[in-house]
Formats: sequence, C-alpha cells, structure tokens
Amino acid sequence: MTRKQIPDIVVGRLPMYLRSLQRMKQDGRQITSSQELGERLGISAAQIRKDLSQFGEFGKQGTGYSIPYLIDQIQLILHVDHDWDIAVVGAGDIGSAIARYKGFNNRGFRVKLIFDADENKIGQQIGEYVVQDSHHMVEAIQQAGIKVAMITTPAAQAQGVADQLIKAGIRGILNYAPISINIPAGVYIQYIDPSIHLQRMTYYLE
Amino acid sequence: MTRKQIPDIVVGRLPMYLRSLQRMKQDGRQITSSQELGERLGISAAQIRKDLSQFGEFGKQGTGYSIPYLIDQIQLILHVDHDWDIAVVGAGDIGSAIARYKGFNNRGFRVKLIFDADENKIGQQIGEYVVQDSHHMVEAIQQAGIKVAMITTPAAQAQGVADQLIKAGIRGILNYAPISINIPAGVYIQYIDPSIHLQRMTYYLE
Repeated sequence: MTRKQIPDIVVGRLPMYLRSLQRMKQDGRQITSSQELGERLGISAAQIRKDLSQFGEFGKQGTGYSIPYLIDQIQLILHVDHDWDIAVVGAGDIGSAIARYKGFNNRGFRVKLIFDADENKIGQQIGEYVVQDSHHMVEAIQQAGIKVAMITTPAAQAQGVADQLIKAGIRGILNYAPISINIPAGVYIQYIDPSIHLQRMTYYLE
Repeated sequence: MTRKQIPDIVVGRLPMYLRSLQRMKQDGRQITSSQELGERLGISAAQIRKDLSQFGEFGKQGTGYSIPYLIDQIQLILHVDHDWDIAVVGAGDIGSAIARYKGFNNRGFRVKLIFDADENKIGQQIGEYVVQDSHHMVEAIQQAGIKVAMITTPAAQAQGVADQLIKAGIRGILNYAPISINIPAGVYIQYIDPSIHLQRMTYYLE
C-alpha cells in the first residue's frame, strides 16, 4: 500500500483515538461522535474529524462513527490488527515491570524475549519469561524475526544495545534509558523518560 | 516572574537539551555548540539556537555555550533548580519500579510518598518507602505540600485518583494508567503509555 505523507503529529494522535474507542467498546458501546471522543481526549471535534479524514471516510454526517468499525480501521492503519513480538533488553526493575505488564493485551504487542548481560539475571524467571544472555541477542532476535524492541538498560549501555538491535533487524525501538540514541534512516525510536515529562510540567508550575 | 507565551513544543524540547548537557558535564565537558547538541539530539542547530533565544542570551557567536552555565539557566527556566517531592499512587509493578528508580537524581525530583488501596500492599516496604493507605492520601499530600504526582493504578481507578490528587493540591500529574483523564484548568498532565508509543512506530513499519 502506498501511503500519502501524513504529518507525524496526526499519526501520533491515532493511538489515543484507538485507546478511547477500545475503552468505549469494553463498556458495551456501539456508536460515538467526534464530539464525544473530543471531550474524552481534550481535543476539538473538528480536529478529530480532520485527522480521521486524512485516512478515509469512516462515519456519516449526523450518524456518528461505528465504534467496532473505527477500531478495526485504525488498527489496520497503525498495523496493530495483529500482535508484534517485542524483545526487551535489560531485566532490571523497569524491564521486569514490562515483562509482567498486562497492558499490551489488545494493543498489538506481546513481549517475546527478555535479555540481560548480568550473569546473576540470566536464567532467572520473570513472570512467564526466562532472562536470556544479551550476548546472543542478535541471533535470537533474527531467528525469532522480531522487529520491535525496548531498551531498559542504564544510559551507558543504551547506544551499544541499540546498535546491536538494529544489526539484528529491529526497526522500532522504545527507549527507556535516559539518553538520546543515534539511529540510521528507516529505524524509528520513541523515548520514555519520566523526568522529561515531569520537567515539561514543572515549567508551568510555581 | 511574568513569562512571555512560549509554544509548548519549545518548552518540551528544553528537558532534552538539559539531559544532553548534564551528560556532557558528567563526561567532564565545559563548552558545547548548537551543532554538537543538535547532532546528539537529531535536531537542527538552527532550531536549538532559536529555541534557546526565546528564553535569553546564553552563548556568544563563535564561542559556544558554557555547559555548566546553560544547565543552571535551563534548570531555572524549568523550575528544577531544586527537587520536587512526588507522590506515587499505585504500588504495583510500575509504581514499585518508580519507587526504586535512581534516574530522578539530579533531574529535579524525588519520590516522597507511595500509596495503594490494597490492604496486602499497605505497610509493605518498597526500596526506602513504606506503602501508605491511599484512603488517607489527600491529607498526607496536603500535609507534605506535594504538588506533583504519578498515577500507576489500573485504568479503572485513574480518574478517581486524579480527582483526589487535585483536591489535595496536586498541580502536575504523570499518568501511567492507559486512559485519558479529565483535569481542570491550572492542572497539567502528561501520559506514559508504552502501547501508544509503540503504535506510533508500527504505523511506519511493515
């Protein structure tokens, strides 16, 4: 499928729409409107209609959106109509919390492998996983055909781990290590660093 | 201090500049340039100069930026020249990982209190903290004068917890629960949901 160029900021809102729609569906709802979605998300109804219209025609004027249909369509657009296997590198507190996290259900992801370089952690059980030796992660990830990974190592290791992951064929990295990582074109990275999010709020406080 | 209106997207980049500068300082560096910062962050040097110029004059043409001075200035701008106490609500895997997290050092934050509603968790030790009963969190947070909180409860509890936090005087919330939360004006919220970040990448994959 060839895709027209859609601003990344619009792409970034689709997962939030999807999450809200999935919650409505869990609550047994069938139909929603851009007004209702907007109120839930703190986004204007006009913005939501404009965003969705970039991808197609998903509702009729006056009748609203079918929740199950819109969920299916957004899942197709985001390529989460199936589950992506994930490799987690770093079996510390954060890596362990991710390995046990139930929140990936129905969101398009499941943790498949977890690695660490520490001999004391290799072989240990975390939830349903056994920690593997990160010295063999390139082969293990290639063999499993995994394309998405999370880095939960200390900052000092993160770039080296990222380089290995990319060598192993990883194309999307969610980085929890508090450091910026250099990646080649064609690889995508997102960052989770609670201090960054907090500082963005404290600017407005006091 | 009256502040001129600065776009939130610019504010959002300052914590990344600060993090990179702090890492350079740890490495014993004294001087940097917008070019070097830009290369580390994947942002153009012109963008960095433009962003910083919104807040003042921090470097001289040709001589670059003093790293310690720029760190001090950005910390003042972001109000992280001192530490903010944080209340964590939810002592599950993620809340526990946060309570043990060392990454807030030097970033302007320290966990002060952790709460849970589960009788089996109340009184338990997590790192250096004892889990407190969330039924008393409004008074405890008010008494401690805490203004920033993290929500690490399941989605179903998050809005109720947020309402209580706001009643207790919390002005900034970092929400790990996978649900959008309604907040009144004057309160700030940021979201961390790994599925949202991952979906934003899988859009570009396949």
